[in-house]
Amino acid sequence: MHTYQITIEYLGTDFVGWQFQKNGISVQEVLEKALSKLLKNKIILYGSGRTDSGVHANGQSAHFKLKKKIIDKKNFINSINFFLNNYSVSVLSLKKRSNSFHARHSAKNRIYKYSIINRYSPLIIEKGKAWHIKKRLDIKIMQKGIKILRGTHNFNTFRSASCQAKSPIKTIKKATIKKDKNKIILIFVSKSFLQQQVRSMVGSLKYLGEGKWSLKDFKKAFLSKKRSMCAPPAPAHGLYLHKVNY
Amino acid sequence: MHTYQITIEYLGTDFVGWQFQKNGISVQEVLEKALSKLLKNKIILYGSGRTDSGVHANGQSAHFKLKKKIIDKKNFINSINFFLNNYSVSVLSLKKRSNSFHARHSAKNRIYKYSIINRYSPLIIEKGKAWHIKKRLDIKIMQKGIKILRGTHNFNTFRSASCQAKSPIKTIKKATIKKDKNKIILIFVSKSFLQQQVRSMVGSLKYLGEGKWSLKDFKKAFLSKKRSMCAPPAPAHGLYLHKVNY
Repeated sequence: MHTYQITIEYLGTDFVGWQFQKNGISVQEVLEKALSKLLKNKIILYGSGRTDSGVHANGQSAHFKLKKKIIDKKNFINSINFFLNNYSVSVLSLKKRSNSFHARHSAKNRIYKYSIINRYSPLIIEKGKAWHIKKRLDIKIMQKGIKILRGTHNFNTFRSASCQAKSPIKTIKKATIKKDKNKIILIFVSKSFLQQQVRSMVGSLKYLGEGKWSLKDFKKAFLSKKRSMCAPPAPAHGLYLHKVNY
Repeated sequence: MHTYQITIEYLGTDFVGWQFQKNGISVQEVLEKALSKLLKNKIILYGSGRTDSGVHANGQSAHFKLKKKIIDKKNFINSINFFLNNYSVSVLSLKKRSNSFHARHSAKNRIYKYSIINRYSPLIIEKGKAWHIKKRLDIKIMQKGIKILRGTHNFNTFRSASCQAKSPIKTIKKATIKKDKNKIILIFVSKSFLQQQVRSMVGSLKYLGEGKWSLKDFKKAFLSKKRSMCAPPAPAHGLYLHKVNY
């Protein structure tokens, strides 16, 4: 058996999320079908993790096992993307991995990117690709807020009620916020995240930035470890699974 | 009479271009109708220039004249965008100008941006917003090529056969190309451009970057002043009218 890793880009808007769902089309389903067709084998695909409905990816990672060897990588990429032509999914790369490789378990870091456009007028070019926030955000206080999130903490405030992780303790290795004109990009790096953690953190940082919360309020919500203290999570369409490092 | 300038964002894909056409919906038409409805006056809108069918704008500029004064700018922006809700157009700002102001004639510089994604796999997130070029481009030779375009020259090679400008002489004040991973951004600044000039220059720079042309070939085509020597123009959907300076 050979183990192959693929990296994938997709538009979250068109899917119910990464994982199989009864109520719509998932990225996993579309990819498994296309891979099985192309490779003439029932392919089971293991993702680095689920992304929620509506969340985009420009660097999702997954692996599958295959008896025969894939000789021509370029031809594989070409063919698989031909099979995916009707869907908002693109396979970016193929890499042969050792048989112990697992897209989920071997991941060292997941990098998420959150995109905000801070302007008064409706979005046209970035519509559906960024969170449109009308009220002017104070980037400096958001920078102070994001600093608090770095390191190892109990992130219970920032996880969805349906999150199944045993522990709410996570280590944020990197958390940055950068502004270029009216575009605000937040980057979060961690070995793994809780369900809706990034969107919950961004939603709370937005409360901070628009002055609905003081830095004290933000800290209080974080330290309370109570989900009920979280600001409304940021919408899915601003979030990108950017990269998975191994 | 009062003169107002608006800046506008639009998705070129949804229009036949800026200017009125019989064969489809133009940005100008949509905006004039919405403005006339909102301001309860027949509004005539003068753009800084036409953009061709499919070309995007994140900083188109136009002006109109109005008898009454617009008091509440924020309310105006809100209302006009409400009227534009069904179209891929957004009014970004409103500015009162002197009565001698003319969106086209007063323009000091027009800034165009051209976006390329240089990768093997099909585009998903940037689909329709950038030119997808599969073959690896040599950015260094493109940088040498773009340098040749700076300054005052006869750009006849780089203008459409239907271009109505009297003279093919233009002055390119700035022409840069930057690469960030697989994203390549070209910026061109000039008081004005010939029809299809930017797309023609980008198309020829692509020939250079992919090795179809040497630097000598590129120069030869440019100096020939013959349209027939131009490479196929770059597609409209990678081009953005980025800003108009006054």
